[in-house]
Amino acid sequence: QTEVDERSMQFKGLKFASKDSLFFINFRFRMQNRMGFVTEDADDLGIREWDARVRRLRLRGDGYILGEKLAYSVQLSFSRGDQDTDNTGVANIVRDAVIFYHFTDNFYVAFGQNKLPGNRQRVNSSGQLQFADRSIVNGALTIDRDFGLKAYYTNTLGNAVYQLKGAISTGEGRSVNTTDKGLAYTGRVEFLPFGSFTNDGDYSEGDLEREQKPKLSLAGGYSYNKATTNTGGQLGEDLFAPVDMKTFMFDAIFKYNGWAYAAEFIKRDVNNPLTYDSDGTLSYAYEGYGLNNQFSYIFKNNVETAFRYSYLTPSKRLANLEDTREVYELGLTKYLKGHKVKAQLNMSYNVGNQNYSLNHDKNYWGAMFQIELGI
Amino acid sequence: QTEVDERSMQFKGLKFASKDSLFFINFRFRMQNRMGFVTEDADDLGIREWDARVRRLRLRGDGYILGEKLAYSVQLSFSRGDQDTDNTGVANIVRDAVIFYHFTDNFYVAFGQNKLPGNRQRVNSSGQLQFADRSIVNGALTIDRDFGLKAYYTNTLGNAVYQLKGAISTGEGRSVNTTDKGLAYTGRVEFLPFGSFTNDGDYSEGDLEREQKPKLSLAGGYSYNKATTNTGGQLGEDLFAPVDMKTFMFDAIFKYNGWAYAAEFIKRDVNNPLTYDSDGTLSYAYEGYGLNNQFSYIFKNNVETAFRYSYLTPSKRLANLEDTREVYELGLTKYLKGHKVKAQLNMSYNVGNQNYSLNHDKNYWGAMFQIELGI
Amino acid sequence: QTEVDERSMQFKGLKFASKDSLFFINFRFRMQNRMGFVTEDADDLGIREWDARVRRLRLRGDGYILGEKLAYSVQLSFSRGDQDTDNTGVANIVRDAVIFYHFTDNFYVAFGQNKLPGNRQRVNSSGQLQFADRSIVNGALTIDRDFGLKAYYTNTLGNAVYQLKGAISTGEGRSVNTTDKGLAYTGRVEFLPFGSFTNDGDYSEGDLEREQKPKLSLAGGYSYNKATTNTGGQLGEDLFAPVDMKTFMFDAIFKYNGWAYAAEFIKRDVNNPLTYDSDGTLSYAYEGYGLNNQFSYIFKNNVETAFRYSYLTPSKRLANLEDTREVYELGLTKYLKGHKVKAQLNMSYNVGNQNYSLNHDKNYWGAMFQIELGI
Repeated sequence: QTEVDERSMQFKGLKFASKDSLFFINFRFRMQNRMGFVTEDADDLGIREWDARVRRLRLRGDGYILGEKLAYSVQLSFSRGDQDTDNTGVANIVRDAVIFYHFTDNFYVAFGQNKLPGNRQRVNSSGQLQFADRSIVNGALTIDRDFGLKAYYTNTLGNAVYQLKGAISTGEGRSVNTTDKGLAYTGRVEFLPFGSFTNDGDYSEGDLEREQKPKLSLAGGYSYNKATTNTGGQLGEDLFAPVDMKTFMFDAIFKYNGWAYAAEFIKRDVNNPLTYDSDGTLSYAYEGYGLNNQFSYIFKNNVETAFRYSYLTPSKRLANLEDTREVYELGLTKYLKGHKVKAQLNMSYNVGNQNYSLNHDKNYWGAMFQIELGI
Repeated sequence: QTEVDERSMQFKGLKFASKDSLFFINFRFRMQNRMGFVTEDADDLGIREWDARVRRLRLRGDGYILGEKLAYSVQLSFSRGDQDTDNTGVANIVRDAVIFYHFTDNFYVAFGQNKLPGNRQRVNSSGQLQFADRSIVNGALTIDRDFGLKAYYTNTLGNAVYQLKGAISTGEGRSVNTTDKGLAYTGRVEFLPFGSFTNDGDYSEGDLEREQKPKLSLAGGYSYNKATTNTGGQLGEDLFAPVDMKTFMFDAIFKYNGWAYAAEFIKRDVNNPLTYDSDGTLSYAYEGYGLNNQFSYIFKNNVETAFRYSYLTPSKRLANLEDTREVYELGLTKYLKGHKVKAQLNMSYNVGNQNYSLNHDKNYWGAMFQIELGI
Repeated sequence: QTEVDERSMQFKGLKFASKDSLFFINFRFRMQNRMGFVTEDADDLGIREWDARVRRLRLRGDGYILGEKLAYSVQLSFSRGDQDTDNTGVANIVRDAVIFYHFTDNFYVAFGQNKLPGNRQRVNSSGQLQFADRSIVNGALTIDRDFGLKAYYTNTLGNAVYQLKGAISTGEGRSVNTTDKGLAYTGRVEFLPFGSFTNDGDYSEGDLEREQKPKLSLAGGYSYNKATTNTGGQLGEDLFAPVDMKTFMFDAIFKYNGWAYAAEFIKRDVNNPLTYDSDGTLSYAYEGYGLNNQFSYIFKNNVETAFRYSYLTPSKRLANLEDTREVYELGLTKYLKGHKVKAQLNMSYNVGNQNYSLNHDKNYWGAMFQIELGI
C-alpha cells in the first residue's frame, strides 16, 4: 500500500508483533540507483555531467507500543546525497523520528521530526513519485521536514472529506542542535469533494489504483518561518543574517481510471532575502514563485507515461541572481510491484529565461534512468 | 529490565535465536524527542535558545554466538547531537562495539569500544536516567567511552556484593583512527553491603522497582589518562599538546520503597591544562571538581518527582576561564513502560559563581520536555 | 558459507521469506575489533603508534524480490576508518547498494554500487581475509568499489570453469554526488582448470574447506579509468587535475588439503601523475607495481599459520616521493566459526628501499591482534 510520511504505517514488509498486541514494528528499506546525464548545451549533445550513484538508501521502522494509540515512525538515510551533507557540512542521517498519539480516529498529534504539512509533492514519500526527482518548484520552495509539534484532523462533510493540519516547529530543518527563538508556524487544509482516494492515493503519484470514480483533492497552506538562518528556510546553506519567510502553497490532484493530473503552485516572500557577511559576501534566501504540472496515464501492463511542465521564477529583487527556469519532461515508468519496485526513464528539456531556442546557452537536455527496489 | 552498558543484555524486544541455542540476537531502538529552552537571564524570561530536536536515536543489538560465553553488544547513534560531530568534525556513529568473554559466572572480559568503568551516572544508559540530561558534573568530568580491554569481577562477602572493574584503553575516546603511545588506565571498586539491587537497579535512576529492603551501592574509582589530546580526555575538542589527566570518582546510590538518592563526586587534575598553538591560541583541558546529588520518590501511579543539585568548580588555574556553576533542578516523570516509554518535564535554575541573585547576569532558568520511546 | 561481494548471498544468519517465496531477506553484521602497534624503528622497539579501535562494523542485507531473478545486496559501514572520512571529508556509509538481474543461471548483471571486478584480494570480502589487513599492494593499487553497470558470465569447458566479468562505472568511487564525463572500463577473466572451489573458496583466503582435490584459479584483468580526480582512482584524496589511469591485474589462488597459496601482481600507469594547484601544491596519483604472496596451512584444530611477502615500488617518476616498501608478515589465526568468528595475531617486519638492516630508519616492526565476530 501507499507509504505516507505523515503517519505510522503498517506495511507488508517485515513485521513483528508481541503476543499481547501491545507492541508492533515493521521494517522497510528502499534503494534508488540511477544513471543520468545533462548535456553541455541544447545544441551540443556532449555530456556535461553524469549523475550516477545510489541516490537513496533508506531504512524505515514504523509501529506502535503500549497499544495502537501510541505510534512511532523512524526513517534513516545513508547515501551522501540524501543527508544534506553538502549544504550543512553534517551527515544528517535521521530523516524521521516522530511519536504519534491518536486521541481519536479523527485526530492525532505528532511530536518529533518529520515532514511539515507542506506542498503535496514534498509530503509524498520519495518512494511514491512518478519521476526520478521532484520538480524544480519543490526544490526551490518546499518547506520540507522540521522538528516540532504537529496536529492532524480528518472529518467528513456528506460524501466529502476534509483535513486540517497544523505545526509549530523550529524552522531550521533537520540539521541543527539548537535554534534561535524564531519558530515556524504552518497550516494546511485539504478538501476531497468525492471522498477518499483508494489506498491513500492522494499522496501517491500516478493512478496505479485505477480509481473507478473520479477522485479529487484540493489543498491550500501557509507557512511562516520566523528568523530562519538557511537559504531555503528548513533547507539550504547558511544565511549571514536571519530572515522571515512566508510560503503560500496550493495544490490539487485528480485521478480517474488510470489518468492522473497533479498541480502545485508555491509562492515565497522573504522580508529581506539578501544577507551579507562582514567581507561583503552575499548569501540570499530564494524568493519567487513556481508552478508544477504532472499528467499521466498508466496502461494495463503497468507501464505509465507521464508529462511534466515546471515553471519557476525568482522575485524581482533576485532577477539578477537567479534565472527563470522551465522544464519539459517525459517519463516512462514500468511498475513491477507498485511503487516499491519500478524502473523509470525520464527525458527533459531545460529552458532558461523563457528563450526556447536550441542555441540559447542556458538551455540543455537531460536524461535519467532509475531503478527503485524496496520492501 | 534494566539496560546495562557494561554487559550484553537479553531484552524483551525483538529476539532471534538459532535452534541449536548457539546463536542469539536481540534488537532494540530508542528515540528521545525534546523541546526545551533557556531564558536570556534570571530576571529576563525571554527565550535565549530553543533545544528542540531528536536528541537520541539509537539502534542496539546484543547477543551471543557459539554459546553464551562469547557475547557481544553493538550500539549505533544516528542523531547529530549524539555523534560528537561538533567537537570532532567526524560523525561518530558507533557507540558500542564490544565482544565479551565470560570465563566464569563471576568474571568476564570485554574487548572493544564501550563505556569505561567510570562514574555511575555515565555508566547508566541514557535510557535509564530520571532527568532529560546527565548533570553538569558528568558533562565536564566524565571519562566516557573508550576502546580497549576491560575486566569485570563480581563476588559476595556474606550478604554483601562487591565488584572490581578495570580497563586499559586508548584514552582518546571513540573518534580516533590511531593513537599515540599514551594509554589510559582505569580501576573501580563497588560495594553493595545489603546485596544486589532488584533488576540491576544500581545502574538505573529512580526506584522503579520499589525495593522492599534498603539497598546501597558505594563505589570509588580512578582513571589515569596519559598523553590525551582532547580537552575532556576521551571527549571534547582537540588540545594543541598532549596532557596527562587524573580523575578521581566516588559515587553512591541508595534505594528503598520508591525513594532513591544518588550522589557522585568527581575531581580531575591535569598536569598542564593550558595548551597553545603557534599563534598563541589557547585550548585547555578542564580541571576541577564537582558534586551531583539526586533525590526522588515514585508514586503508585508511576509518577516520579525528583530534585537535583549540582555543583561544579574549576581549578584555580582555570578560574579566569571557567565559572563555578550550580544547578537546582526539579523533575517530573511519568513512566509508561518503565524507563522505555516515559515523559519528562524538568525545570532548572542555573547559577554562576555562587551569586544567587535574580539580577546576576550569569544566572538563567531552563525548562525541558522530553518523550522517550523505545523497545 | 563464503561471503562473496559480487553476488547476493543466502547466508545462515537471520532470514525472512514471504510465504509465496517472492521475497527474501537475510541480515548479517560483522565487527572487527583490533589492538596493534608499530615500533619507532627496527632497532628501537618503543611504540610509535597504536592502532586500537573498532576497525569495521558493518550491516549487510541480501535477498531477492519478485522471485530469485531480481536480487539485491546492501552493505553499510559505520566505523570511521571504514567510511573514507579522512580522504573525502564525507562519511561514506553506503558500501554496497546494488540490484542484480539474473538472465540465466550463467549470466547476470548488476546495477549500482559494489566492488569492481578487480584484484582478488579486494574482491574477497573483508570477512574472508587471513590477515587483519589486506596487503600494501592492494592498498596502493586496487580499483575498489564503483557505481555503474557490471556483467558476470560463468561457463564450463570440460571440467574447467571460466568466468568473464566487465564493468562500466563512474571511476570516482563511492563518495561522489556527480561526476565528470570520464568513466571507467574494467574487464576480467578467470580460469579454474580443475573446476569450482568448494563453497566459492576461490574468493576466501586460507583453505578452510580442506579441498580434497587441488583447485586453482588464474585470473587477469584490466581497468581504464578516464579522467579520475582521486589519487587512487576510485580511492584517495583529491587531485588538482583529472588523470587517466591504466591498471593491470594478475592473480592466482591454489588450495589443496589445508594448504593455500595466493599471489597477485598489479601494475598501474598514469598519464600524468603529478598535479598542482595554483599555489604549486602537489597532489599525485600513485603509479608503480606490486606483488603480494600469501602461503598458509590450516591444522585440524582450525589454527592456521600464514606467511605473507609483499613488494611495492613506485614508478621512476615518483621515486623521490614514495619509497619502495616490503613487508614480511606472519599470521596465526584461530577460526572458531569459519571466517565469521576468528582471532588473529599478525607480526610484520617492514622494510624501506630494500635496505634490510635493523638500523635503517625506514624499517620497523608491527604487531596486530584482531577479533572478528559476525553472523
